[in-house]
This record gives sequence, structure tokens and C-alpha cells, in this order.
Amino acid sequence: MKNTATLLINCPDRKGLVAAIADFLYRHNANILHADQHQDAEQNLFLMRVEWDLTGFSLDPNQFERAFAPIAEKFEMHWQLKLASRKPKIAIFVSKYDHCLTDLLHRHQSGELDCDIPLIISNHPDTKRLADFYGIPFHVITVSKENKVEAEAAQFALLDAHDIDLIVLARYMQVLSSNFVARYPSRIINIHHSFLPAFIGAKPYHRAFERGVKLIGATSHYVTEVLDEGPIIEQDLARISHRDQLEDLIHKGRDLEKVVLSRAVRWHIENRILLYANKTVIFD
Amino acid sequence: MKNTATLLINCPDRKGLVAAIADFLYRHNANILHADQHQDAEQNLFLMRVEWDLTGFSLDPNQFERAFAPIAEKFEMHWQLKLASRKPKIAIFVSKYDHCLTDLLHRHQSGELDCDIPLIISNHPDTKRLADFYGIPFHVITVSKENKVEAEAAQFALLDAHDIDLIVLARYMQVLSSNFVARYPSRIINIHHSFLPAFIGAKPYHRAFERGVKLIGATSHYVTEVLDEGPIIEQDLARISHRDQLEDLIHKGRDLEKVVLSRAVRWHIENRILLYANKTVIFD
Amino acid sequence: MKNTATLLINCPDRKGLVAAIADFLYRHNANILHADQHQDAEQNLFLMRVEWDLTGFSLDPNQFERAFAPIAEKFEMHWQLKLASRKPKIAIFVSKYDHCLTDLLHRHQSGELDCDIPLIISNHPDTKRLADFYGIPFHVITVSKENKVEAEAAQFALLDAHDIDLIVLARYMQVLSSNFVARYPSRIINIHHSFLPAFIGAKPYHRAFERGVKLIGATSHYVTEVLDEGPIIEQDLARISHRDQLEDLIHKGRDLEKVVLSRAVRWHIENRILLYANKTVIFD
Amino acid sequence: MKNTATLLINCPDRKGLVAAIADFLYRHNANILHADQHQDAEQNLFLMRVEWDLTGFSLDPNQFERAFAPIAEKFEMHWQLKLASRKPKIAIFVSKYDHCLTDLLHRHQSGELDCDIPLIISNHPDTKRLADFYGIPFHVITVSKENKVEAEAAQFALLDAHDIDLIVLARYMQVLSSNFVARYPSRIINIHHSFLPAFIGAKPYHRAFERGVKLIGATSHYVTEVLDEGPIIEQDLARISHRDQLEDLIHKGRDLEKVVLSRAVRWHIENRILLYANKTVIFD
Repeated sequence: MKNTATLLINCPDRKGLVAAIADFLYRHNANILHADQHQDAEQNLFLMRVEWDLTGFSLDPNQFERAFAPIAEKFEMHWQLKLASRKPKIAIFVSKYDHCLTDLLHRHQSGELDCDIPLIISNHPDTKRLADFYGIPFHVITVSKENKVEAEAAQFALLDAHDIDLIVLARYMQVLSSNFVARYPSRIINIHHSFLPAFIGAKPYHRAFERGVKLIGATSHYVTEVLDEGPIIEQDLARISHRDQLEDLIHKGRDLEKVVLSRAVRWHIENRILLYANKTVIFD
Repeated sequence: MKNTATLLINCPDRKGLVAAIADFLYRHNANILHADQHQDAEQNLFLMRVEWDLTGFSLDPNQFERAFAPIAEKFEMHWQLKLASRKPKIAIFVSKYDHCLTDLLHRHQSGELDCDIPLIISNHPDTKRLADFYGIPFHVITVSKENKVEAEAAQFALLDAHDIDLIVLARYMQVLSSNFVARYPSRIINIHHSFLPAFIGAKPYHRAFERGVKLIGATSHYVTEVLDEGPIIEQDLARISHRDQLEDLIHKGRDLEKVVLSRAVRWHIENRILLYANKTVIFD
Repeated sequence: MKNTATLLINCPDRKGLVAAIADFLYRHNANILHADQHQDAEQNLFLMRVEWDLTGFSLDPNQFERAFAPIAEKFEMHWQLKLASRKPKIAIFVSKYDHCLTDLLHRHQSGELDCDIPLIISNHPDTKRLADFYGIPFHVITVSKENKVEAEAAQFALLDAHDIDLIVLARYMQVLSSNFVARYPSRIINIHHSFLPAFIGAKPYHRAFERGVKLIGATSHYVTEVLDEGPIIEQDLARISHRDQLEDLIHKGRDLEKVVLSRAVRWHIENRILLYANKTVIFD
Repeated sequence: MKNTATLLINCPDRKGLVAAIADFLYRHNANILHADQHQDAEQNLFLMRVEWDLTGFSLDPNQFERAFAPIAEKFEMHWQLKLASRKPKIAIFVSKYDHCLTDLLHRHQSGELDCDIPLIISNHPDTKRLADFYGIPFHVITVSKENKVEAEAAQFALLDAHDIDLIVLARYMQVLSSNFVARYPSRIINIHHSFLPAFIGAKPYHRAFERGVKLIGATSHYVTEVLDEGPIIEQDLARISHRDQLEDLIHKGRDLEKVVLSRAVRWHIENRILLYANKTVIFD
């Protein structure tokens, strides 16, 4: 198992930032494995991801905050420290379509997604057998207009009980309430089956077919209050032609959805995503 | 030079269509080089492109219509016959950006675009030297809010004088009047620097940058009354990252614009585009 | 269920071919759904795929051969008739890597692959649980240098018993004997994890990493006597950078392998592949 | 004009490297614009590119070496300092095909390639008119088996007279002698019209067509003694089908060659390429 720490930093750009951070890590005997930084000139922002081996590092994670505080304050940093040894806990929400769920569970099993998945929540029982095969507890919570508040309360109880870090909507066909979204800021990832901002909303493949586009897309993004307007994490596209009927678009789209969603989840798990100005920086 | 004829057909789908067309061509001794057809099941449409060698073909192009009329009437066909020997005449409209113009003129010179380009029309003198280099007559017609009607009248005069078949807007930064558009139905090709229908309208790269998309696109389409809503001919995309500033998007976008526009022009010239239901079928 | 027939034709190009075929189908009341043809000018070949609805078609499949024989003989056709109602029977061969197997079985279950899979054969027991989940009989046949002849004899017995039409090597890590290959001409599909003809043979990802290529690929192909030299069915690529270590290449490669293999299998099932001159034409 | 310095570093990976470099730059009042680094774990290498604004930087470029020497020695660095104000001088070699030349000259004129191009050398007079249009001195040096030594001597004289930093082979159809290659180590960029290592050597499009690949590629690379074996800088691919004849492959390939070569040239100019182990790291 990896024994590394990752620091994500977001602050106003100033001289001496890299020197201060690198010197701090060097003084505590960090062996830097990856360091990547980016200056956004327009917004005068400094964005950095640095990952180091904890073997030989002289600070305990609990001591880190206090030791790093003077630098963080001096440069007005927003920062997070993530430990690879502390696997994120993920809840997957799904409805009837099972292609993204199958894909995520297989990647998890094969070691590509380094996380725990303590539960799957669905508004339909259809994918229970699949969850059983992969040994993941499966909870059915039916959702309707009438019971939405109660249903979300039941979801919250499960999420709380398992100390969930991230919620992945793997083609979950219910719109979350703004209360739900506010509870998990930048901690809900959704897959939308179009190249956003094209075809926001319902039935994107139908509308793509009707408009006669020459490629179809998929977009993974963090969920915010406004539908399909959250920060985009990843997108990809596939070429179509007049030989593709609506059904073919849906088939081709599934392959896009799987890779675009799984990349987003992996990057989140590996602390490669830095958010600012409703955009993401992917330190890949 | 190629001595072929191309027939484009669009009609309700019915049994016996292929047999009737193939038999007609065979009886007149056509040597079919390419035949491609497509059934749109939803709209019950039959769409076909067939190209044959005119060597040995027993019908004169002038006789074709009369000979083909019984079949065309029986099956309620919309059809067009195009002769490769009759090169289409193209007018290019351009403003200051010269990358698409340079690209089109080089492709024309190298034989990739089998057409005549009797004139270039611009609202700025900037690209005259380039037109001169390629030996294409260059006309400056200044356009403003006040003189739009007169300017377009001057454009019409030039287009009429040269018997223009197709107008290519190679980053021409003026919106054509609805009168202009109506005069050249399905005969004006524009390049829009986004993946339509995302970022319709002005400054698409700026908006793509702001939205944080992970790929930028370009779209070539026929111009219709509604801005950026005409039938899409071709689209392509390029991946970008946080390392790309707005200027980089513009650079990468230029390469997309060039290929996406030139493919549309070539397909139009080679009679590979069939229009229906505000969509295109590309018989490539 | 679809009730269609598909005819694949390969013959010297001559005038009147399309007319003869279309007329034959029309006389027997075929409702053509798709027809696609291609002339290879260099080899003077005519290649065609035509699919029609059998509802109302006046010939029984058993009568087809006799009725079509005069045309087939006149034009020296190689032809095959495939009925959608007669699902192809596929055997999947697999070793330990299960990503392609998982992908194929999920696509089969979701209806994307319209075939029967009566058995999976593996030289390792690892994927048995997966086969059980999807309800496919699973046979372990251990293979070593010493027992290769006996092992293949056991495989032949199983393949014969189930009347297998197509063998899919889903990352099966054994080289088939030339006897095996000769027994199933153009009926074995393999996935090779490189962009052939680059990196023929063993450990392609390692060699791609060492060579410093900027994209990695995958290739599905029919198996012939010469390793990795059979007709290519499909290829795709993914961009990599210096940030990708060997392990990342392998992860990214898996996603390519899955889509590239599954497309090949689907096209074979749907009778979209026409072979000639060690190449394939894909009528997609 | 940009007034920046770029430092490229390649050395054994050790703790304290980033701290030492960042501290050095900070002490001399550098405003870091971009910093990117990479650890190659397999080779235990540290690779870094850092670019800073020279405004306010306290060291004169001439003083830099002496000031940086202690750090460079301590960490056994290979390093280069490049100044944006000192534009690289590029010689373009070309034969008859002019698409890459046209593309490079247009990008140069439009400001995308920030370099000087003091001369074009060709073994044919065909592209002289194009060179004249862009105002670049054009030299014809005929090359044959018999006069190769003299021809290269004439080329060396021109390259020396203009103090050339980089030679770009823009579809130059002569093989350079090993003497020539040795004279310009990592300073000659070539475009090869295949996805290397597939189709090394002559007529790659013909061989790609014959092999039946489903995509064609292009590769830009530094020239080394062994033909087509030098470090790869960039590659790209385009999809083809049976509808593409050899001529279409060549047309589609041209578009690849243009972008793949121009990206390599731009990255070289912008000091974004770091070479090691016959591979390139592109700090884009």
C-alpha cells in the first residue's frame, strides 16, 4: 500500500511560494514524488499539488497542521492534506442502468480505484444481484415526489453511518434536492450524457440525434445547485454518422459514460482535482 | 480529369427503389464507381448517392432528365445530377483572420479542392497580398450598419457576374442579412469556432475558457436564417487543459477550424452531402 | 427479435452487378433495410453487404441458394447468407486478466451482442466466479508445452459439441497451434494490446513505454498462421504522457482493449465484416 | 515581447532538489511563471522546467552560470538556460512537397512560432515562390549520390553563416549523412508520415494501405544516426476506412504531418522538450 501524503494548495500568487513550500517539506525530510503547480495569470492564483513519501517524514499527520500553519497564513492558502493510507469512502447511487455501476465495481475490484465502497443506494432493486456479486451492501430507497424529503433523510442516515466522503451518481435518475447538494459541497460527482454545455437537461441523446451533431459526448462534473452547471471534471466524445440510429448513439454513449465517470472518480480519490472559479484543474 | 456523374436522391422509402435506379443505370451502360444509400427508418426516407463513369454511358447529360423522369416521378424523388467536368464556382468571404483562407487556397492549389475560385470578397484589405499570391481576384467591400443593404447589393452583383455556386465564409465576421441567406439556400457554408450547439453566438473560445470545458471544438454548417442553427456538416474537437490559456485555445482552435471547414467544402464540391430534416448525410 | 437476412458478396467488379442483385431481391419482394457496397479499383473487386426484412420475402432460406445460384455463377461471386434469427454461437477463451471477459459478458447481457455464448474455456480457474454470475458454463483446460496437443483436442471436443461459430480470444495468453488456426479460418478474433504493426509479439506496453511513443493502441484481428499478422478489424488509441508510468499505460490500455475487441465481435456477429486480400471492409 | 528565462534540468533524483532550486530563484527575486517537474522512478531521474519573469531578477544572464554552479554541481545537474529574448534561428529543409513548409511559414508569420527563419534550403527550386512570398531567403542545393559530401559542405557553410540553432526537415526527401547528424545532436527535427515504430522507412502510406490499418499516423522526432529511431516528440492519428483509397490516405496524412511537425517545432522553440533515455518529456 502507498504511504504518501498529498497537499493541495490554492492561494494568491506571490514570489517565494514554491521556495517556502519546498523548504518546509525538505526541512521535515519529505521525499517528493510528484509536484505540479499552475499559475492562473488572469486570476492571479497559485495552484499546487505535491505528493511525498511519508517514510522518513519527520511530522506526524496530526502535527502537520500546526507546523504548516505559519506558511499557510502568510500566503493566505486554502489547503488540504490527504493521506493515501486513509482510503476515501464512496457511496454509489444508481437507478436501473447498470453499465456505469458494473464498470466502477470492476475497476474497484481490479485495484484501479483505491477506495472503500461501503454501500450502494438505489431507487430500484434491479442491480442488487450485481452488488451482491461484488460484495457491496445494497440499499433500496424508493423515491417519489411525495416522499422525497423522507427518502433523502433515509439516504443521509446511511451516508452518515458510513462516514461517506464522496457520492457518485452512476446514472442515478433522480434530481437531488438543494438541501442534499448543500450538504455535500464538491463531494458529489455526476455523469451527464452529453458534451456540456450542449444539451443540458433531459434526453441529451435524443436531442443530439435530432440536431444532427457529428460527435456525441459525456461529461462528469461536481454537482452544484444549478442542474448540469457544476465544475466539469472530464469530457470525451465519439464520432457518429448517419448510419447511427438513436439506439447506436445510446450504445456508443455508454462507453463514453463509463470512462468519463471512472476517470473523474479516480482523480478525486487520488486528490488530483483542484477546484476554483467553477473550474477544475486536473493534476494528472 | 474525372469524367463522372453523381446522382443524389432523397425520397420516401419503398420497395424496388434500388432495383429501379440500378436497372436504369445498367440499361444506359453506366459503370458504377461508388454507390451508397441509407434508410432513415424514423422518417421513412431513402437517401442515395451514386457515382458512375460517363465513358460509355449512353445518355447525354441533357437527355438524362427526360429519361430519368418516369422513375423520379414514380418514387417522388428529389434528385440532383452533378457532373465532375462542371467544376463548382466558389466565392470565399473573409475578414482579417487569414488562417482558413490560407488553408483553403493551398488545398485548392494542391488539387485537393476540385473547384474554381473566381473571387474573394472581404470587408478588409488585409488578405489581398495572399489572394494575389494565389492569383485570385480580390474585392474589398466595406460593410457597416448603415451601408449593409448597398454592400450586399455589391456582393450580389459580383456573385452573379461569376455565376457562383457556393459561398464559403472563412471566418467572415459579418452577419449576413436574411435576404442574403434566402438567396443562397444550402449554398453558404460557415465555420463556427465551437462545438455547436454549445456556445452559439459570439466569443465562443472565451466562453469555453470560462466554463472550463475539457475540449474545444469547431463546426462547419450550412447557413440558415437562424444564427448557428443550420445543418451541421462536420465537427471536430481538441483536448485542452488548465495549462492552456485563452490564447492557446485560440491557437488550437485555428487548427480545428481549418480542417473542419475544408472538409465541408470538399464534401460539398464532391457532391457528398445530402440534406434533410435540418441534418446532413455525408456520403464519404 | 430481428427477422432479417444479410448477404455478403465479394466478386470481380462488372457492370450490371447492382442491378442484378437489386432486381433479384425486388422480384422476391425483399424490403431492403441497408445496402452498402464498395469498389476496390486497384484490385477490381466489388464488395457488398445488403440486409433485408424477411417479412414478406418470397424465398425460404433453404430455397435461396438455388434461386440465387444463376446470378452468383454469372458474376463469379463469393457469397454468404446470414439470418439474424440464427444467432452465432461464440466461445470465449480467457486466461487470468478478466477485463475483456467482464466487458463482453456485460454487453451480452445488456443485449448489445446478439449471440449465444455456450461456453468459456480458460487455462486458469480464476474467472469461474464471473462466468457463474453470468450463467455461462466454464471449462478449465490447463495448457503446457507438453500437453498442448491433448489440450487442444479437449478444446476441439467442446467446440464441436456446441457447434461453435466464432472463437474470441479475450486476452487468452496461449499461442494457438497452426492446426487450431487452420480449423477455424476467419473464425478466431484476437485482441492485441498495441497498434499493429507496431510492437508485434510479447510485452507491447513495455516496449511502447521504452520507445517513448505518445499514444498507445489496441488492435483486434482475425487470427492467421503468422502471429499478429491477420486481417485487422479495429484499432484505437489513447494519448499518454511522461506522467504515465508503465502501470498507467496498462490501465489505459485495458479500456482500449475492451472497446476494440467488443466492436470486432459485434461487427462479426452482425455480419458487417468482409474479408479480402488480408484486409477487412467494415460495413458499419 | 516576453522577457523570461527558462531553465531545463535533468539530474539524479534526490531530496532537497526542489527546495534548492526554488530557494535559489527566490533569493534572486525571480517571479516564477511556470514550474513543472517530473520524477522518473524507474531511472531515478529528476526532470524539471521552470520559467520566470526576468523583470526584477537580480542576476544578469551572464552571471547566472557562476551563481548557479554550486547547486548544479552538488546535484550533478545537466542544465540549460534559455532566454525568450534570444530567438532561436531555424533553417527549414524542404524538397517538393510544400504543405509542411506552407504551414510553418504561415504559423511563423501569424506569431505562433517565436523564432527567426533566416533561410530555407531545398534540393529543388519548386518552393522558391512561396519562400519569396514570406520573405525568407531560399537556397537551392542539388543533392545526388555523387555530390553528397559537397552538398552537405555547402549546407554547413550556410548553417554556420547564419548561426542556426535548429534544422527542421519539412518533408525533405534526402537522408542526411551520419556526419551531418553528429554535427547537430538533438537539433534536427524530422516528420515521418507514419505512427512510429510502425512503418519505419520508405513509403509508409503505401504500406499502411496494404496492411489494412484502421488509422494512419504521423510522428515528429529528433534525428539520430539510426533512421526513424530518434526520440519521438509528437504523434497523432486519423481514422480511415475502406472508402479511403491510397490517395485519400496521403491527403489525410498531410493534415497530420502539418500539426505534428509544427507542434514539435513550437515546443522546441519554447524550450518545452527535455530529452533523456532516447525519450522526450514535453512540458506543455
